[in-house]
Amino acid sequence: MRTLRERLHDIIFQHDDPAERAFDIVVMCAILLSVLVVMLDSVASIAAAYGKYLYAAEWFFTGLFTLEYLLRLWTARDRLAYARSFYGVVDLLSVLPTWLSILFPPGRFLAVLRVLRVLRVFRILKLAEYVQQGAVLSAALRASRYKITVFVCTVLTVTVVVGSLMYLIEGPTSGFTSIPQSVYWAIVTLTTVGYGDVAPASPLGKTLAATLMIMGYGIIAVPTGIVTLELDRASRASVTRRVCRGCGVDRHDADATFCKHCGTEL
Amino acid sequence: MRTLRERLHDIIFQHDDPAERAFDIVVMCAILLSVLVVMLDSVASIAAAYGKYLYAAEWFFTGLFTLEYLLRLWTARDRLAYARSFYGVVDLLSVLPTWLSILFPPGRFLAVLRVLRVLRVFRILKLAEYVQQGAVLSAALRASRYKITVFVCTVLTVTVVVGSLMYLIEGPTSGFTSIPQSVYWAIVTLTTVGYGDVAPASPLGKTLAATLMIMGYGIIAVPTGIVTLELDRASRASVTRRVCRGCGVDRHDADATFCKHCGTEL
Amino acid sequence: MRTLRERLHDIIFQHDDPAERAFDIVVMCAILLSVLVVMLDSVASIAAAYGKYLYAAEWFFTGLFTLEYLLRLWTARDRLAYARSFYGVVDLLSVLPTWLSILFPPGRFLAVLRVLRVLRVFRILKLAEYVQQGAVLSAALRASRYKITVFVCTVLTVTVVVGSLMYLIEGPTSGFTSIPQSVYWAIVTLTTVGYGDVAPASPLGKTLAATLMIMGYGIIAVPTGIVTLELDRASRASVTRRVCRGCGVDRHDADATFCKHCGTEL
Amino acid sequence: MRTLRERLHDIIFQHDDPAERAFDIVVMCAILLSVLVVMLDSVASIAAAYGKYLYAAEWFFTGLFTLEYLLRLWTARDRLAYARSFYGVVDLLSVLPTWLSILFPPGRFLAVLRVLRVLRVFRILKLAEYVQQGAVLSAALRASRYKITVFVCTVLTVTVVVGSLMYLIEGPTSGFTSIPQSVYWAIVTLTTVGYGDVAPASPLGKTLAATLMIMGYGIIAVPTGIVTLELDRASRASVTRRVCRGCGVDRHDADATFCKHCGTEL
Repeated sequence: MRTLRERLHDIIFQHDDPAERAFDIVVMCAILLSVLVVMLDSVASIAAAYGKYLYAAEWFFTGLFTLEYLLRLWTARDRLAYARSFYGVVDLLSVLPTWLSILFPPGRFLAVLRVLRVLRVFRILKLAEYVQQGAVLSAALRASRYKITVFVCTVLTVTVVVGSLMYLIEGPTSGFTSIPQSVYWAIVTLTTVGYGDVAPASPLGKTLAATLMIMGYGIIAVPTGIVTLELDRASRASVTRRVCRGCGVDRHDADATFCKHCGTEL
Repeated sequence: MRTLRERLHDIIFQHDDPAERAFDIVVMCAILLSVLVVMLDSVASIAAAYGKYLYAAEWFFTGLFTLEYLLRLWTARDRLAYARSFYGVVDLLSVLPTWLSILFPPGRFLAVLRVLRVLRVFRILKLAEYVQQGAVLSAALRASRYKITVFVCTVLTVTVVVGSLMYLIEGPTSGFTSIPQSVYWAIVTLTTVGYGDVAPASPLGKTLAATLMIMGYGIIAVPTGIVTLELDRASRASVTRRVCRGCGVDRHDADATFCKHCGTEL
Repeated sequence: MRTLRERLHDIIFQHDDPAERAFDIVVMCAILLSVLVVMLDSVASIAAAYGKYLYAAEWFFTGLFTLEYLLRLWTARDRLAYARSFYGVVDLLSVLPTWLSILFPPGRFLAVLRVLRVLRVFRILKLAEYVQQGAVLSAALRASRYKITVFVCTVLTVTVVVGSLMYLIEGPTSGFTSIPQSVYWAIVTLTTVGYGDVAPASPLGKTLAATLMIMGYGIIAVPTGIVTLELDRASRASVTRRVCRGCGVDRHDADATFCKHCGTEL
Repeated sequence: MRTLRERLHDIIFQHDDPAERAFDIVVMCAILLSVLVVMLDSVASIAAAYGKYLYAAEWFFTGLFTLEYLLRLWTARDRLAYARSFYGVVDLLSVLPTWLSILFPPGRFLAVLRVLRVLRVFRILKLAEYVQQGAVLSAALRASRYKITVFVCTVLTVTVVVGSLMYLIEGPTSGFTSIPQSVYWAIVTLTTVGYGDVAPASPLGKTLAATLMIMGYGIIAVPTGIVTLELDRASRASVTRRVCRGCGVDRHDADATFCKHCGTEL
């Protein structure tokens, strides 16, 4: 017969039978509610009126999640592996801020980090479509990482150079008070966010800014192109993940009849 | 012989013979004019000068559209189906606000919702090109829905996490008065809208903001990539997938009569 | 022997021998200089100091372009065709504002419209690459026109609906003074321009704005996807413009061996 | 036996054995540190407190880089080729500003130009992946240069025309003080940066601005489409274009040993 620990393990880590799904739904609702509580608690007018209730709710949810974390730790097959996994760390981070707020009160707002636990919803719902599409997305992003590193380094270099020139051209009167501030402005401009808290005032500064914007036009096209192509490749690869009987190589093209590695018929 | 109801049904729901097309054009012009009337009525200076005439015009159009709605309901083959269809609901919504404004006056501006009726123009014009292209667009968007859901959930999680961090870093002095406000700022920044009504002031806040913008660069590329690929797939699917009997090659153009590879008649 | 008119026609409309190229270069420099003159004349401080010289330069260039226009008209093979062509109209528009400024002085700034004449540079330079690439770009944009019309109508409908809702939610206190103003805000937000001159202040307004921005994310992806695919198609078509000897059909795929229309070997 | 000059050449220009790599790492750290020093020196509060130390550090790094530049010049195989190469010029530019600051003090901030030396990191790290991906990116950008020139000229013409119209419509009261200023606004708007320092106030101006934004939607799609296609082409070109002797099929993957269509060894 199965022990309590084994039964609890299934309820907590599996998502198939009714009891297991009920547990998942309760946890998911508790996460969303507790994030809402922390967010409302940060609004001064609401905190003034309902602060007591929100405080109580916050500790109630923290207690719940602490208990859940201890249960997860106890019932996990490989405890160290769970504690070090992405979700293990997130589960810990979602209770720590409230406990630490006894020592450092404002830190309790870090409890919103528990919103990261919501990402588990895709695994819980076991929607094959979502899992597969998520895998395609992350495969595409992983495959683009070299191109994107080269790209980000180039962009940062451009912003440092343009930011420094603007610092010399504009000076502190129009908000370019230092080179770091000017580099911040260059990033705000190149990414087309454009707050307008810092903006060039002199004709030469405006000319340089306009050049940067036109360049930004071309530059913003680069990551889009990269991601589009990698998504294309990733979604094709997910369609034709056929394994060769002869040598075990996968990743054959959709129209392949023979293994590209050993020539065996697929 | 055809009854009056059948004749009216054709005039209202068909778009072929002159009488039917004349009806469509009159309705379309009335919609655009009445939306213009509601918009002008909301401009204080115009309402002060011509309010009386706009009020009269508004009730005239509402009367017209109410009559048209009742006629549509009367002449429809399946009344319940019409009343529940997208256009049935929109037709009702386009007259309700004015009638309800007797009880709740400001609500009359909701009458602009009748602009949604304009979407019917594509069906009326019967331009095969427009209908086909619209179908390709909506097929592409439908096919992207799983990827886009995963994407939107991830973006929302990122904005909640970054927003909360900014609330702790910046505090209320630079506009980050609460976590919901900070999350709003994070969305404004990540989507590169950048109003500038809330903007970081501290060096640490600016560094985090700059990181978010560079990330936003990569993130904005994702939906573009998704939609491009799905559009590609949707417009290919609309081309006939014909296979040549001679050589087995598919992917012939829609207007091909002979196989481009071996010359066999398709 | 060739008449003066024929010789002038070649100098003005051809771009091959040295005399013809010299004429083109002089005209191109004159256009750029005269646009610069009009732009500088609009800067108050420069106009105060050098207004007299700029005024003289402006009339000098206008005289020059008027003479050139009359010569073009005189030497053109088909005068009416030239006068009605895009460049014919632009040539006229580039001199009219200055002449009309005798009656309506501020209109002289419309003389910058002569910058449109600069577009002729691609034809003058006879750079096959530029002409071909320009043709690919405009073919792609032409092919996308149905999809883009559907798209623009949908976007305008969305902005009217969201703008009206914001007008009801926010009201005049935060800048949403009328429905047209709110629709303007919705366009500024959806296109991610985000001036910040009008921005929501109430929690409900901010929630709706955030939803619009996330939607804008998906929406901005649509024209990108459309243009990418049409560019792909247009640049492929320009590569393989092979004409079938049997039936005269072009637009065969790059890998086609037989005419898709009549089966003749290409 | 190798001379000192040959040994130094290898240490400076090669990146293989431990001594060579150690040199690279020291130089790279010195560059990043010295850029940090220049950036911090521009922040008024930090310069006031630690100006003396930053000044000393700046001269220390300048001395180091001057020595390195002279060594590079002495040990280079072809001195003129090195002095004229991109990195040769950048190496010189990274020490000149500090030396020139003896004559023109504010110019010392140009020393941040030495951040361009960081781009050498990709060559130093010898990460085949980075070099290859960087090559694909720059090949794509090079191949797009004609299309992008046509595109940039068209965008500039549009901004001059729209900017001039806005100058006539809005006038100096809402910030459109001159045509160059209005052209600057048009670029800020078309690139969706949208600072909000200049924004239309009249209904007609807002209508024109909204039209420009909707156009900008389509226009921003063009460089994205261009870069996506060229990236696609460039990354395909980097895959070996091998043709199967058995069946003539090409487009085999880079790692294919056998034809995917007929199984013949490639």
